Amino acid sequence: MSASNENEPEGPPPSDESVDDAIETRRSGRRFFLKSTTVLGAAAIVGCGDDASSGAGATTTPSGPTPAAHPSTHIAPGELDTYYGFWSGGQSGEIRILGVPSMRELKRIAVFNRDSATGHGQTDWSKQVLGGRGAGDTHHVHLSYTDGTYDGRYIFVNDKVHGRLARVRIDVMETDAIVDIPHSQGTHGIFPQRHRTGLVLCNSEFRTPIPNDGTNLTDPSQYAAMHTAIDGETMEVKWQVMVEGNMDLCATDYQGKYSFATCYNSEGGVTLEQMMSAERDHLYVFNLANIQRAVDEGRTIRVGRTDVPVIDARGDNSEFVLRVPVPKSPHGVNMDPTGRYAVVSGKLSPTCSVIDVEKLEDAFAGRIQPRDCVVAEPEVGLGPLHTAYDGRGNAYTSIFLDSIVTKWNIAKAIEAYGGADVDPILDRIDVHYQIGHINASMSETREADGKWLVGLCKFSKDRFLNVGPLKPENDQLIDISGDRMELVHDGPTYSEPHDAVIVRADLIHPTSIQNREAARFRLYEQWAQEDGVDLMRESKIIRKGPRSVRVYMTSRAPNFAITEITVKTGDEVQIIVTNQDQVEDLSHGLTVSKHDVQFIVNANDTNSATFTAGAPGVYWYYCPWFCHAMHLEMRGRLIVEPR
Amino acid sequence: MSASNENEPEGPPPSDESVDDAIETRRSGRRFFLKSTTVLGAAAIVGCGDDASSGAGATTTPSGPTPAAHPSTHIAPGELDTYYGFWSGGQSGEIRILGVPSMRELKRIAVFNRDSATGHGQTDWSKQVLGGRGAGDTHHVHLSYTDGTYDGRYIFVNDKVHGRLARVRIDVMETDAIVDIPHSQGTHGIFPQRHRTGLVLCNSEFRTPIPNDGTNLTDPSQYAAMHTAIDGETMEVKWQVMVEGNMDLCATDYQGKYSFATCYNSEGGVTLEQMMSAERDHLYVFNLANIQRAVDEGRTIRVGRTDVPVIDARGDNSEFVLRVPVPKSPHGVNMDPTGRYAVVSGKLSPTCSVIDVEKLEDAFAGRIQPRDCVVAEPEVGLGPLHTAYDGRGNAYTSIFLDSIVTKWNIAKAIEAYGGADVDPILDRIDVHYQIGHINASMSETREADGKWLVGLCKFSKDRFLNVGPLKPENDQLIDISGDRMELVHDGPTYSEPHDAVIVRADLIHPTSIQNREAARFRLYEQWAQEDGVDLMRESKIIRKGPRSVRVYMTSRAPNFAITEITVKTGDEVQIIVTNQDQVEDLSHGLTVSKHDVQFIVNANDTNSATFTAGAPGVYWYYCPWFCHAMHLEMRGRLIVEPR
Repeated sequence: MSASNENEPEGPPPSDESVDDAIETRRSGRRFFLKSTTVLGAAAIVGCGDDASSGAGATTTPSGPTPAAHPSTHIAPGELDTYYGFWSGGQSGEIRILGVPSMRELKRIAVFNRDSATGHGQTDWSKQVLGGRGAGDTHHVHLSYTDGTYDGRYIFVNDKVHGRLARVRIDVMETDAIVDIPHSQGTHGIFPQRHRTGLVLCNSEFRTPIPNDGTNLTDPSQYAAMHTAIDGETMEVKWQVMVEGNMDLCATDYQGKYSFATCYNSEGGVTLEQMMSAERDHLYVFNLANIQRAVDEGRTIRVGRTDVPVIDARGDNSEFVLRVPVPKSPHGVNMDPTGRYAVVSGKLSPTCSVIDVEKLEDAFAGRIQPRDCVVAEPEVGLGPLHTAYDGRGNAYTSIFLDSIVTKWNIAKAIEAYGGADVDPILDRIDVHYQIGHINASMSETREADGKWLVGLCKFSKDRFLNVGPLKPENDQLIDISGDRMELVHDGPTYSEPHDAVIVRADLIHPTSIQNREAARFRLYEQWAQEDGVDLMRESKIIRKGPRSVRVYMTSRAPNFAITEITVKTGDEVQIIVTNQDQVEDLSHGLTVSKHDVQFIVNANDTNSATFTAGAPGVYWYYCPWFCHAMHLEMRGRLIVEPR
Repeated sequence: MSASNENEPEGPPPSDESVDDAIETRRSGRRFFLKSTTVLGAAAIVGCGDDASSGAGATTTPSGPTPAAHPSTHIAPGELDTYYGFWSGGQSGEIRILGVPSMRELKRIAVFNRDSATGHGQTDWSKQVLGGRGAGDTHHVHLSYTDGTYDGRYIFVNDKVHGRLARVRIDVMETDAIVDIPHSQGTHGIFPQRHRTGLVLCNSEFRTPIPNDGTNLTDPSQYAAMHTAIDGETMEVKWQVMVEGNMDLCATDYQGKYSFATCYNSEGGVTLEQMMSAERDHLYVFNLANIQRAVDEGRTIRVGRTDVPVIDARGDNSEFVLRVPVPKSPHGVNMDPTGRYAVVSGKLSPTCSVIDVEKLEDAFAGRIQPRDCVVAEPEVGLGPLHTAYDGRGNAYTSIFLDSIVTKWNIAKAIEAYGGADVDPILDRIDVHYQIGHINASMSETREADGKWLVGLCKFSKDRFLNVGPLKPENDQLIDISGDRMELVHDGPTYSEPHDAVIVRADLIHPTSIQNREAARFRLYEQWAQEDGVDLMRESKIIRKGPRSVRVYMTSRAPNFAITEITVKTGDEVQIIVTNQDQVEDLSHGLTVSKHDVQFIVNANDTNSATFTAGAPGVYWYYCPWFCHAMHLEMRGRLIVEPR
């Protein structure tokens, strides 16, 4: 056990010096500002205005309060946005759908969180898939692909808390599968393959003992991390590749040959100082064909109590994993829309490293060195994290410490790296403040269209009316259709969006009436068959056992088909509600007073929850949706008799 | 037990006719459209375009897609909104803060819901106040008052699921008290007194046996409802008044003399048909001075196992309760800013009833009849629900079935009721669709300023990009500064805002650094005293018993003071984190991998959670907030040894 029992708040924490020294500062006159103030945290996030426009390249676009309204983001009443934005909700455990460019939140999709409105986490089906857990931390949200663009079928999202991957059906915009990833903690970067709905690759950020069964607790040299492949169709874990370093962000190529993972802790450290000690870390490149062949041929191991085939690829480069050295503690890795270049952002280096994917085959074959795949390394600013694209050959990198976005040209960066006297930096713009992820319209597809850029800023400070110690994040919208970037909207959001994708509206086609195709309907149908009940038509109260009652109940505005349910105290009561209404936007729900039961039943939907009947008495159940002029009267009585 | 076992979806539900007949239709040629189609639900919510502008009075303002952007709602990047909007989140169980006029959501405040981001519902303190419950249904949010306007201290909000009232501290914008209301189900309307932070009055919507202990289960004639007074300072239940009918919306006067409750089920029915049978129901007027006198003099009863003094005021009018007859199934009751008129909206009557508060004393004294307090009853449209004010003598009533807002003049309505040939209706505007609550800037204060009106529409249907069967609500913003209403913004929101208040920004002054004054800090301080630990400075791991470990841990970006915690499998582990950072917007948090633990610790804050250590192994804990460039490295290991 270690504990800093007398950690005085006034003094700098022990790691101050080491953090400071760890930052590469190639640009003269500009120091990472941790050192210059006494309060470590304050310095790291508050400063940034002193010389933000210094360094090589273009000047910074002014971005103070705009004097006049910017009409381009205004969607008049009744008009529609032109893009869907899919946002990971971070610690909220959810996915959000925004309209772009209005930046209005259109929906929350409960995924790993318990949601009081829909009952997610409390209905029978969601309790099964969540296992009673209610904390989630979603970081990366990506849609399924076919031929390098979105096919409108699924959304995938990770959970860092429990090491899970979830899938959302786009047809009904609800979670339909959650998979626990074996031997995995801190699941962070994920990315689906882009040539078809194939594998979804998932990175473990935290190195742990594998198997993590208590046999090794304290020897970090034996810790490892997993790069996991999950079938996007079946949501089965197909294989895992074990590596020595941790893994942060993830990407796939456009051909289906490779997946990528940034490794910021190639040192295998367990403390901040240890993790930052090396000057270069790695981009891991996974050779999917070679891995699949080994899996097919049984050249794998089994680990712990799972049956998932595992390849132990720790240590040196092999047919499975190539380690491309990149400076230092790299964070994001993003493929450009041509499919040729993977851009890795340096985090503790002011550079991006451009990897030419066409050179990887030679590197895997040993004909060139891994580092030879790097074809450019432009200086973009202090703390580069992620890169987006406009489809016109330009890249936009989010710069955390400088709180800017840097626009640069990939071809020029390659020329400069080759020795030409060209400046790849085209523009810079201030953001407010401390930008993390960045994305642009269709940026992660072959159809990147260079219209809108969103920067997910981690601190908003004074940008909105003060709402107390917990302030909103600031999702800023930037118009990138012209030569210069233009900040057009400050978008406050709840803690804490990590990543977002912006998708052309014509690619997304949800239903308005529930289509009953999601996995959970198999459950209801199974019960109904068991009980000989026609789910869509019948309402019945069935005593299943001495302490167990099942209720099938239909709803149609403004009525439940059953207005009185009599049970005994302590009964386990399951209520299955089917909404007969077939009208767009006509959702009902069921709330049982004093029993912590509340869930939604959309048009043509079924949903259910199970609870224990409380003390003897009368408890009203009601429809919590304002479904009708008489919605307050849409209710009935749960009559709990003494046993 | 009753069950409609063979309820065919094609046929109309049994109550169709009775619903239809129940609607008063004074305007010729216009019928409530339930009857005209076969599907009850569909008709009730979909129709409305056929002759929305018919009826008496002014024409309807056009409100289709506006061709050009409306600049008035656009807040440029870096500029601030001029009003705070406080929104009840309905079934989401939360409060939302919006900026007005931009209608951007600035914050969610977890109240009755479990929130994955802040850990509300899962931290030690919130588990205590929520009792493990995670479902909430907030309907009405009101701020504390002094001298008829907002004093910036508290927000109060109801929970309909469990019959609770919560208070949020405005200084830190977090929930600090939740009270279970005795003998109460379906707590719906609430309203604080307006002359000072005195009582908060809460209505039970559902009539139940009182006490609800199983001795009477099936005789609804003995059911009753409670009008409950809770002290806004201490959050103690002071008294309850038992009435025979149910109670819906609530209001208080400006003098501290009366509180009001609409009663839509004066019949005491338990089915839809029964509840709608009477032509008139009531506005209950509670005489607070008389009630307080009776409480002080002990002229009260005790009910069940609570000590709260109860006045049984069922039956006839008395010194405690006056029943003012109003047509039919009244819904909203809203005091006008002069404090003289309470406007009751008819719901099943196309009228609003204007009650002159100055006449109530005579009515209580028996010098006039209760109905003599009604001084106007203008026809406003089909399905009037709630009324807002502009401070210029005009009222704005939300009309659910017509999907319009009707602007009318109170003085003219009184003249017309007195026989003068004047039309009180000034304007109508279409809303989209099925509007419920309505509110205007400062409308519920003496300082109503007539700038912005918000209409909370229950159906959005085609107004936004399709996001599946569950669609957003539509909070529409209307400019009421001119003679005609102008729709300026469609605001999508998650299920399901019920009510909102719009507050001038200069009245709200939250802190940015946690001030440690909320109730939960007493808990942490008590533990720290117990263990001789200086919360703000010290980090310590203390074994409290053979299966119990308490950890005090400070945080400062990017470090936890403890990076290794060793416990035994099955230990109950409590981790108390204190954030030493004193920097605006610098929140940390704690997530424990695989242990369903995640919570926030704001700047200068403390927070804690307790969990059971899982199977032997290594589990990383980390800060889920992006607090620093090295935030991913802000973590440590929970090492769980075999027992």
